[in-house]
Amino acid sequence: MVLYIIGLGLGDEKDISVKGKELIDQSDVIYLESYTSILFISKDKLEEYYKKKIYEVDRNFAEENCEQILDEAINKKVSFLVVGDPLCATTHHDIILRAKKKNIDVQVIHNASIMSAIGESGMQLYNFGQTVSIPYFEGDYKPTSYYNKIKINLDNNFHTLCLLDIKVKERTIENIMKNKNIYEPPKFMTVNEAIEQLIYCESVHNENVITKNTLAIAIVRIGSKDQQIVSGNLFTLKTQKYNDPLHSLIICAPNLHDIEKEYFDMYSINETSI
Amino acid sequence: MVLYIIGLGLGDEKDISVKGKELIDQSDVIYLESYTSILFISKDKLEEYYKKKIYEVDRNFAEENCEQILDEAINKKVSFLVVGDPLCATTHHDIILRAKKKNIDVQVIHNASIMSAIGESGMQLYNFGQTVSIPYFEGDYKPTSYYNKIKINLDNNFHTLCLLDIKVKERTIENIMKNKNIYEPPKFMTVNEAIEQLIYCESVHNENVITKNTLAIAIVRIGSKDQQIVSGNLFTLKTQKYNDPLHSLIICAPNLHDIEKEYFDMYSINETSI
Repeated sequence: MVLYIIGLGLGDEKDISVKGKELIDQSDVIYLESYTSILFISKDKLEEYYKKKIYEVDRNFAEENCEQILDEAINKKVSFLVVGDPLCATTHHDIILRAKKKNIDVQVIHNASIMSAIGESGMQLYNFGQTVSIPYFEGDYKPTSYYNKIKINLDNNFHTLCLLDIKVKERTIENIMKNKNIYEPPKFMTVNEAIEQLIYCESVHNENVITKNTLAIAIVRIGSKDQQIVSGNLFTLKTQKYNDPLHSLIICAPNLHDIEKEYFDMYSINETSI
Repeated sequence: MVLYIIGLGLGDEKDISVKGKELIDQSDVIYLESYTSILFISKDKLEEYYKKKIYEVDRNFAEENCEQILDEAINKKVSFLVVGDPLCATTHHDIILRAKKKNIDVQVIHNASIMSAIGESGMQLYNFGQTVSIPYFEGDYKPTSYYNKIKINLDNNFHTLCLLDIKVKERTIENIMKNKNIYEPPKFMTVNEAIEQLIYCESVHNENVITKNTLAIAIVRIGSKDQQIVSGNLFTLKTQKYNDPLHSLIICAPNLHDIEKEYFDMYSINETSI
């Protein structure tokens, strides 16, 4: 019948749009994707608010049992809920393609995303270059490809939005090999951890991308009541204590425009942390 | 007391978040900014839905009479409504700075924005470079600075989101000089007009940015029921007939990833227009 892909926005149960809420009310089955991002409230809270049962979907399920969701959508109204704006990440493009191949009607309900909410930092969205993700180092696996992307942005006087890694319902390689569904505790990269990894990248590549003069802005729990926006140089930001994740990080362009400067000063560590 | 800056999303009265709607219900005065973007419904429809009077604010008013709004917010709950996500454009950063200087509490309610909604085209948001605006040529004033920005994006294999000009409640230079508040009829740049201007830029700069091989995607009324996403080369897209504005345009990176290719083909002119 129909698959609704509904964005939940960034904060809590009331960040859904009125339209999205109405479609959930009409839906027969509701799935919640909970591995690319999270809201700052529990699934129970959502269920209480929607007065409906929600099935949580992890990466495994979405990739392997996607067909099950689609088969249901042939005869039912199925809502697939995604935190933020649903098509910001690459993850959910596949399910739409598959649905269209089965002639299932798909309707996307957009919502707030970190990609535009960072406008609240005062940095102009027009002045951002490519967005990068910073994945957790794991053992000897220490990818640094984002370092060069940040360098290109800095060279062009662009800001860089760094999205920080999230590990939810992940299994160790050992448990995957043994086919054991034992999940590691969730972890969410902090601004402090991200900066530490960036400093490591600098020590490997030595191209003066991450220096004492690199300005940055910590974006903490944006869209929630305990949101923090804290600006400073990277080394100062590394030593601060922030509210719980989710965190993101903006590496600022070397030359800020006037209004960007005003915002940077307004959010600077000296103003906000003392 | 408090200034709520509330994003309305992209389509109609029901794209507001539940939270945003609740804050409007509690507000004493409501302003609607109607010069950087528009919803696909009238102000009357919004007033009927909110059951409240809405004061429309044009560029003049917002820039000159901003203090009036702020003075009201000292003793009242004032909502300032903005289409899309309110801090996507540079326009509304100033009012927040001014509010903070007056110690007025400011709360931003984020919502869907064209900046992330274009994920629906299948082009990956991570693969976008700098966003550009294409302003209307006016007489001999034919700015082409976006041409070089698109070139830099193409050279780096990035997509470019082109935001197309909107003229709402603008006065001619003559009427401004005479201090006459006579407004020109609103106009909204179409994909066809944007491509025509891009072809003009090519004729001036001759750097093979806009060619018969340049792939692009027309984004029409995204987030509304009559949304269209149409892909093709620029010259083919120029000759198509689209639904009414608002329009945006994506200039695609030369090399698309697999899933981007699948989406591009799915939306291609041959599939959608016949």
